[in-house]
Amino acid sequence: MAKVRNVLFIMCDQWRADHLGCAGHPHLKTPVLDALAQEGVRFDRAFCNATVCGPSRMSMYTGRSVMSHGATWNRVPLSFAEKTIGDHLKPGGLSACLLGKTHVLPDVEGLNRVGIEGGSAMNALLREGGFVSLDRYDGHSPPGEESGYPAYLRAHGFAGADPWNEWVVSVDTPEGPKSGWNMRHVRHPARIPEAHSETAYMTDRAIRFVEEQGDTPWFLHLSYVKPHWPYVAPAPYHDLYGPQDMLQATRRPQELVDAHPVLAAYRRMEECVNFARDETVATVRPAYMGLIAQLDHHLGRLFTTLKRLGRWGDTLVVFTADHGDHLGDHYLGEKEIFYESALRLPLIVYDPDPAADPTRGRVDARLVEGIDFVPTFLDALGLPIPGHVIEGESLLPLLRGPAPRTWREAAVAELDYSFREARRLLGRGANDCRAIMIRTERWKYVEWIGFRPQLFDLVEDPQEFVDRGADPALENVRREMRDRLVAWFLARKNRRTRTDAEVERMTAAHKAHGVLFGVW
Amino acid sequence: MAKVRNVLFIMCDQWRADHLGCAGHPHLKTPVLDALAQEGVRFDRAFCNATVCGPSRMSMYTGRSVMSHGATWNRVPLSFAEKTIGDHLKPGGLSACLLGKTHVLPDVEGLNRVGIEGGSAMNALLREGGFVSLDRYDGHSPPGEESGYPAYLRAHGFAGADPWNEWVVSVDTPEGPKSGWNMRHVRHPARIPEAHSETAYMTDRAIRFVEEQGDTPWFLHLSYVKPHWPYVAPAPYHDLYGPQDMLQATRRPQELVDAHPVLAAYRRMEECVNFARDETVATVRPAYMGLIAQLDHHLGRLFTTLKRLGRWGDTLVVFTADHGDHLGDHYLGEKEIFYESALRLPLIVYDPDPAADPTRGRVDARLVEGIDFVPTFLDALGLPIPGHVIEGESLLPLLRGPAPRTWREAAVAELDYSFREARRLLGRGANDCRAIMIRTERWKYVEWIGFRPQLFDLVEDPQEFVDRGADPALENVRREMRDRLVAWFLARKNRRTRTDAEVERMTAAHKAHGVLFGVW
Repeated sequence: MAKVRNVLFIMCDQWRADHLGCAGHPHLKTPVLDALAQEGVRFDRAFCNATVCGPSRMSMYTGRSVMSHGATWNRVPLSFAEKTIGDHLKPGGLSACLLGKTHVLPDVEGLNRVGIEGGSAMNALLREGGFVSLDRYDGHSPPGEESGYPAYLRAHGFAGADPWNEWVVSVDTPEGPKSGWNMRHVRHPARIPEAHSETAYMTDRAIRFVEEQGDTPWFLHLSYVKPHWPYVAPAPYHDLYGPQDMLQATRRPQELVDAHPVLAAYRRMEECVNFARDETVATVRPAYMGLIAQLDHHLGRLFTTLKRLGRWGDTLVVFTADHGDHLGDHYLGEKEIFYESALRLPLIVYDPDPAADPTRGRVDARLVEGIDFVPTFLDALGLPIPGHVIEGESLLPLLRGPAPRTWREAAVAELDYSFREARRLLGRGANDCRAIMIRTERWKYVEWIGFRPQLFDLVEDPQEFVDRGADPALENVRREMRDRLVAWFLARKNRRTRTDAEVERMTAAHKAHGVLFGVW
Repeated sequence: MAKVRNVLFIMCDQWRADHLGCAGHPHLKTPVLDALAQEGVRFDRAFCNATVCGPSRMSMYTGRSVMSHGATWNRVPLSFAEKTIGDHLKPGGLSACLLGKTHVLPDVEGLNRVGIEGGSAMNALLREGGFVSLDRYDGHSPPGEESGYPAYLRAHGFAGADPWNEWVVSVDTPEGPKSGWNMRHVRHPARIPEAHSETAYMTDRAIRFVEEQGDTPWFLHLSYVKPHWPYVAPAPYHDLYGPQDMLQATRRPQELVDAHPVLAAYRRMEECVNFARDETVATVRPAYMGLIAQLDHHLGRLFTTLKRLGRWGDTLVVFTADHGDHLGDHYLGEKEIFYESALRLPLIVYDPDPAADPTRGRVDARLVEGIDFVPTFLDALGLPIPGHVIEGESLLPLLRGPAPRTWREAAVAELDYSFREARRLLGRGANDCRAIMIRTERWKYVEWIGFRPQLFDLVEDPQEFVDRGADPALENVRREMRDRLVAWFLARKNRRTRTDAEVERMTAAHKAHGVLFGVW
């Protein structure tokens, strides 16, 4: 009964790591996740592999860096040659079931090129990134028929051609309904009652899923669309918190002096211009905190269900997000730029195995990445971890011991800003907008194509106010970080079509095939 | 009539760049290729992207570095998600026809995973790396039914269960037939008469192909298996040259002192042990020269045909090889280790367009790579060069002018020696055997996973006798080369599923899709 048989992989969208009670937020209450952290391990230095939804998720679903999987930004399809968690679960007879958001876009051109029929089951699976899609819903646009949510809304009296825009992301104000797309309106409550909101609906679906499985093992990716924008919270969460409760924006006017050219371009984009204003921060952050409090509440309902059904003893639970949200830090909105506010993930892993008892309640400060999730799931389920493609490390040894003698010394994340207005502001081409960040315990280094690097001393300057990328005194540090990058690049696993076992079998095997080169 | 309508892409296997009359070989005669160089441009510093057949060819067929295409060694299938020259020719209504060797191995596991039917036309094309295979023949093993050669041999009286081993790679000696797999036997002539040898047969096929096309445009990849081992030359070519005619092996005993660990391991493998002996060099090099003289002769037959048919005026001809052959240089056999003997390609490009008249007969010393061939073909045919995947540069501006203001300052090649006995000798795992070489005009730097780098000063030490990879005086040079590597890695084109035009169209387009983030 101690053996992990099920996996609950909970992802939230754009949830900052510092927005958790157990991570030290002074006012935000997250009692359910705080309790989960007491039962499991909270990783305090977990990082996404890309600071934007699509590529970060693809890294989490493939166990591979963006360099390797190639889906460099949102709406860049994941090549159908990339294997995802669904492929890797197959040897265990498990499907990767999906409720919610994945950001997977089908590689239609690739599928068409090889003539995979539109209606085939494999096409459907490839289109979903290897997930069995129970209720897919990406949260940016009105959900379509791939989600049960629109029908649910209509069945509960929230009618209209587009009930999502009309009820879910609109707010009630004294002057009548307004769009929640406008950030100034998110001080008002969503028009949708809390019980019918996105978070409540998807939690209900998850509870039903777990109930329906009975004793059959399962893997569920429960992927909430919140607290991502539109930052519309339903009552009472919309005003559970006020500006006095929020973390103040981490920013100083000196940051704007001689700023890195790419940052300067980003700060000219609308979301950054708006988040540079104190009023935006003071309006959005409390609503964002409310959305988090709501998520915490509903996770409590789900965890209670798991306990009631006896699943707390055989289910590995991973709680995380795809990346953070600057929310005005460093005069930025959104994410992408590699400050900790975007880069760091909230991450709690609960492992029911008694071998994990000694680590319960621990905070682990080792450097963890999104690519570590797939190998962790496989390891927990006793399934093989394909070493020729998986670039992450299983976290299980950190939970169950013995603690590994070595662990990665640096975490890496990537960015392709070619789809952003910043590219045009900088006059750059579609292939000239790459950046890569490498971060040790002390230093964060960012290499940009065509621009000077950035460097932050995370010990002396934990709030990342001073970019020392051009500081002559730190050339040695920059060199060391570039050397780490070379080693990192060289370790990418691009040999996707031969397993390690095949390499072993094929090594120096030419003579067995009648190929006798080099014989005198 | 000046417009390029056809492409003849001639590849030979394991042909060293210094084994051409026009490249300065003191005794070897290659009048046909010397004449081609007079009509076109010879590139004196052209390099393969991998120093072994499979990955080098995949780079030439995809226009992408090994890092990007992932077929890191021989018999590592090219992912079916990679597009090859066949895909890129489609907009022009052309097929990439193949006669000879490609080393493409089908991505069977990938094809099976997505359920592509074994019998479908697309499967067939994907299995051939996008080539329309007219007569495929890889030259390492007895040709199968995918080649007409076995039937041809039998029809001409060379019978037997395995006529290739019996006639083509066996030799006649005074003591009777012997195997040409044994290098000591290659001083004797092949049992097969010259007119029925591999090179003669494949040239006949090419001549017939060109004749059959008439005025219909075509693309032909004519890919000879020689002068690759088994080094068996038919009479009279087997003793056209003697040891007195060959280049002496480039090696000095000091190279064996404190040798790089990977090189030391290579030198323990059979082909290097044997090539370290003077007798091997003196036996193999003359036969190898004979095979080259034979190829030169048959290329003359083909070029005469092209001229007779009027095709010399509308056919782009590229003559090259996949890599070189150490033939005992540096106490090495085979290739792989990044000395110029393996790395440098013979390369002659003949462009019929009158715009290329000013460069005819020129020797161009710019750094050229195997990934440049695909964009050169597309450019010559007026077809689009997909900028999101093609990493090479068209050579046409170097032929037709105006000379580009900038050109690459470094060439890069890669190695994965995990399939080699050297891996076991060094006790390394299947993912720890990567190396990458970057070479400027002056310096050659090799980064190895887990070992010190190598560094050669190609100006002071053009024969690469002194590895300065650990010389403290050159740390600045090594740093500069590593910095170049970081830039190179960051410029890889992994965003395979979105074209540059799509990026342009999608840039900052969210509002048009009702996604209004960041709006106050």
